Amino acid sequence: MQDIIFRRAETSDLPAIIALIAGDQLGPVRDEPSQPLDQRYLAAFEEIAADPNQYLAVIEDRARGRIVGCMQITFIPGLSRFGMWRAQIEVVRIARERRGEGLGRRALEWATGLCRNRRCGLVQLTTDRRRDGAREFYEKLGFTASHRGMKLTLQPMD
Amino acid sequence: MQDIIFRRAETSDLPAIIALIAGDQLGPVRDEPSQPLDQRYLAAFEEIAADPNQYLAVIEDRARGRIVGCMQITFIPGLSRFGMWRAQIEVVRIARERRGEGLGRRALEWATGLCRNRRCGLVQLTTDRRRDGAREFYEKLGFTASHRGMKLTLQPMD
Repeated sequence: MQDIIFRRAETSDLPAIIALIAGDQLGPVRDEPSQPLDQRYLAAFEEIAADPNQYLAVIEDRARGRIVGCMQITFIPGLSRFGMWRAQIEVVRIARERRGEGLGRRALEWATGLCRNRRCGLVQLTTDRRRDGAREFYEKLGFTASHRGMKLTLQPMD
Repeated sequence: MQDIIFRRAETSDLPAIIALIAGDQLGPVRDEPSQPLDQRYLAAFEEIAADPNQYLAVIEDRARGRIVGCMQITFIPGLSRFGMWRAQIEVVRIARERRGEGLGRRALEWATGLCRNRRCGLVQLTTDRRRDGAREFYEKLGFTASHRGMKLTLQPMD
């Protein structure tokens, strides 16, 4: 298990990350992991990397030289609760063939430690109601399904 | 109605914003709007103001010289959907005595326009299940309650 590490993503991880995202999508838009990668992914990666309040993480299986999961954490400064920071987690993905090994749990525990180090008082995320078992997964980690996650898709104007 | 404006918050708005937040809290922590303001609010305000992906907004009634609402928008760069940006909205608050005038609807419509200008493809927020009518309010604005909002409170380590 020491062969599994959690670290900040590098540009060279990008094809693997896009493959993880494309391999598990519920929405109408399908991402495209084929190489050479769409330039928009490289531009987005650079925007994430340039933002000190973003942490794009990968789970690497070093023994096999493979990226087996990813997640993105956004650190949000806030006013309420005496200026509490919160962390928002997006795109938690574990490679299909590596599910059931506890990687997701370990990744979230690692992320929670990172959020503590960043002085966050709250970690939050939303999970699609169509994802079976997701609620129970997060509840076992201590999360509470106290809120409704509301989404509004914006169409391009032109 | 032209006397209502939506704009970026300034330091001088901070006491009014903290009063709005403190006046409508569901959690165990109660904010403290009395002046002089707790220094932690000033520090948090500066962190928000320094982050180009944060937009702390106020609703100002210029005729009466009063702040009557606030919200915070976080612009999040992402990889999925070909590098789509998303906007996360927090602490939407309307002064108790100004509810029912449609200010919340106008504020969200204004925010949605801002998010379009920032190239966001999605606007998201979570609303506490205990807030009666919140779901219907956001659904009328086009939001879908497609997700569960999961929260994990972190206790200070020391």
